[in-house]
Amino acid sequence: MGSSATSGPSSRFPSSVYAARLSRAAELARSAGLDALLITPGPDLQYLVGSRAQSFERLTCLVVPADGSTPAVVVPTLELAGLGESAIGELGLDVRDWVDGVDPYELVARGLSAPARSAVADAMPALHLVPVTARLGTMPVLATGVLRELRMVKDAAEIEALRRAGAAIDRVHARMGEFLQVGRTEAQVGAAVTEAIVAEGHTGAEFVIVGSGPHGADPHHEVSERVIGRGDVVVVDIGGPVEPGYNSDSTRTYVMGEPDPEIARQYAVLEEAQEQAVRAVRPGVSAESVDEAARSVLAAAGLGDAFVHRTGHGIGLSVHEEPYIVAGNGIELVEGMAFSVEPGIYFPGQWGARIEDIVVVTADGCEPMNTRPHGLTVLGG
Amino acid sequence: MGSSATSGPSSRFPSSVYAARLSRAAELARSAGLDALLITPGPDLQYLVGSRAQSFERLTCLVVPADGSTPAVVVPTLELAGLGESAIGELGLDVRDWVDGVDPYELVARGLSAPARSAVADAMPALHLVPVTARLGTMPVLATGVLRELRMVKDAAEIEALRRAGAAIDRVHARMGEFLQVGRTEAQVGAAVTEAIVAEGHTGAEFVIVGSGPHGADPHHEVSERVIGRGDVVVVDIGGPVEPGYNSDSTRTYVMGEPDPEIARQYAVLEEAQEQAVRAVRPGVSAESVDEAARSVLAAAGLGDAFVHRTGHGIGLSVHEEPYIVAGNGIELVEGMAFSVEPGIYFPGQWGARIEDIVVVTADGCEPMNTRPHGLTVLGG
Repeated sequence: MGSSATSGPSSRFPSSVYAARLSRAAELARSAGLDALLITPGPDLQYLVGSRAQSFERLTCLVVPADGSTPAVVVPTLELAGLGESAIGELGLDVRDWVDGVDPYELVARGLSAPARSAVADAMPALHLVPVTARLGTMPVLATGVLRELRMVKDAAEIEALRRAGAAIDRVHARMGEFLQVGRTEAQVGAAVTEAIVAEGHTGAEFVIVGSGPHGADPHHEVSERVIGRGDVVVVDIGGPVEPGYNSDSTRTYVMGEPDPEIARQYAVLEEAQEQAVRAVRPGVSAESVDEAARSVLAAAGLGDAFVHRTGHGIGLSVHEEPYIVAGNGIELVEGMAFSVEPGIYFPGQWGARIEDIVVVTADGCEPMNTRPHGLTVLGG
Repeated sequence: MGSSATSGPSSRFPSSVYAARLSRAAELARSAGLDALLITPGPDLQYLVGSRAQSFERLTCLVVPADGSTPAVVVPTLELAGLGESAIGELGLDVRDWVDGVDPYELVARGLSAPARSAVADAMPALHLVPVTARLGTMPVLATGVLRELRMVKDAAEIEALRRAGAAIDRVHARMGEFLQVGRTEAQVGAAVTEAIVAEGHTGAEFVIVGSGPHGADPHHEVSERVIGRGDVVVVDIGGPVEPGYNSDSTRTYVMGEPDPEIARQYAVLEEAQEQAVRAVRPGVSAESVDEAARSVLAAAGLGDAFVHRTGHGIGLSVHEEPYIVAGNGIELVEGMAFSVEPGIYFPGQWGARIEDIVVVTADGCEPMNTRPHGLTVLGG
């Protein structure tokens, strides 16, 4: 049950989308020499059948046979209603519901060869993976290896959802002067931003980072009771999902009053680094080459050591997914991939800055989902 | 970082509590013939070292060697700050932090024999369990088998936290007339109850069920846009954590105006069933005998088929944990165990009712954590 949207974008795509994805997933499993994919609740389940089921202690599991026969859904009888919004009914999947006393792992294995070679969702907890392994007789591999090719490349409807998400988070950044003010704590700013994220069309705020002054130098800072002061540089990294579940993620850096000239100079290098990385994105280049494009600009200006993380991560139903834009990842970019480009510079104990846009690879470059100005935005002068 | 409590109950117990738990956990692992316990973020990690770390894609893992040597914590360098509130520093654990490019599974295996027999947290995702298994050379078992004995029996400080949680949720039920009114939707009532759960001392609302009329007949209903009408029976099942992380969980059933006599008669049987189950709780009896005590009262009145779930579940850092009060669970109750006693009756398409208290086993019976009246409470007549 829960909330039922009566207007606005639907919570899932039409069933035909999921039918095509399931069919392609089975093909990929077959190519990988597997007998089946076993998908417990999480983004893979949402991707394949449009279900947002949450289940931990009692097993819910989609079984996609590699031979192309009808997929099955093992689900506790008490949780059947929770599948109502998914495409499972319209797709005519084989629903195998179970009550306490029944062995759900037996229902997973039914119809599979023994031993069966399977791939399991990354999110499957040990609670289920240990008995699944015992039942199937072989250690599963990770389904990401099979599904990444499918999930990384977004179709038109997914890209449209990412565009709506990007526009929604851009509207929040456009209003930042209402929230980010000298004398407020980071936590107060964060609470106001959280409300705005929902008000501007997200179904929730997935993360809200307000890193002021020295806190901006910690990429994993969230919010704190620190009071924002005049002259502070403030990193604001925010995002969340829009229906049907696709995420925004955008960072801008603000300064409370005119910036110190040295800060402005270093920030300009970061802006150049982010721009060069976006320019490097096109089909056929490697993920790591985009990372290198940002890194080389910063290194040339003596700021290489200040950039302590990877340049980006894929995004879609998960905020972090493949492809990762990082040294060592030689994967070739193809049209439809969506990921962040977010170099940062960090000076521990002093200040930090980051600029982040989501981009989608197009036939000859990329389309940014975020279009707010990239400069160091002066607020509350 | 995040919020830092400056008053009120602390977010964890003193370090000595965790030192004793770690030592006992190592003993239990040794008795089980294991080499180590491997504990990723979740309630087991919170239980053993007071850490609420949340980590998915990058491995954070507590390694408790069975030989009693110093436990280790494998953690991404970027997430070290998140361990600051835990007891890990004061306990002098061996912190092995890692950056991208380092193999964290190698850090887990360091110092263990090969192959190593391990038990892993139920919550460890396949993403980590698959490579851990490859590294250790044997399939792990579930740590619950080792830790249940420890976690099921609450000490005085844990029971005190459960008492505070129970009193807090009782205060919310006492105010239900403010929230639950004819003409409001379940979702509106739920939002007001969620606020009250926090206002009365919880750190958040973990779940809020408002099941009115026919929705009361679905034990897994949450809230909906259904408008509450005169005469409706309404099941309200609510709870959440209080510091340092222990949960409340209490259900009461309300009726909007004087109840139909037949409903009142059937409800009286449920009340008797719940009371008899609570009376059955004492050291030395089995978990299933408590389930049977409730079930036999309902069955004798012809309501056996209307009670479609188990009688209860353990509670503590998790809302659902061992011991489960269910047919087939012969585990013997011992002083300090904490669990719910929550029989219900469900009439699909019509109405439902449930009464739930948390109880803690004492030397000669049990202490209820919830003390609100058990009757069908008439509201807004």
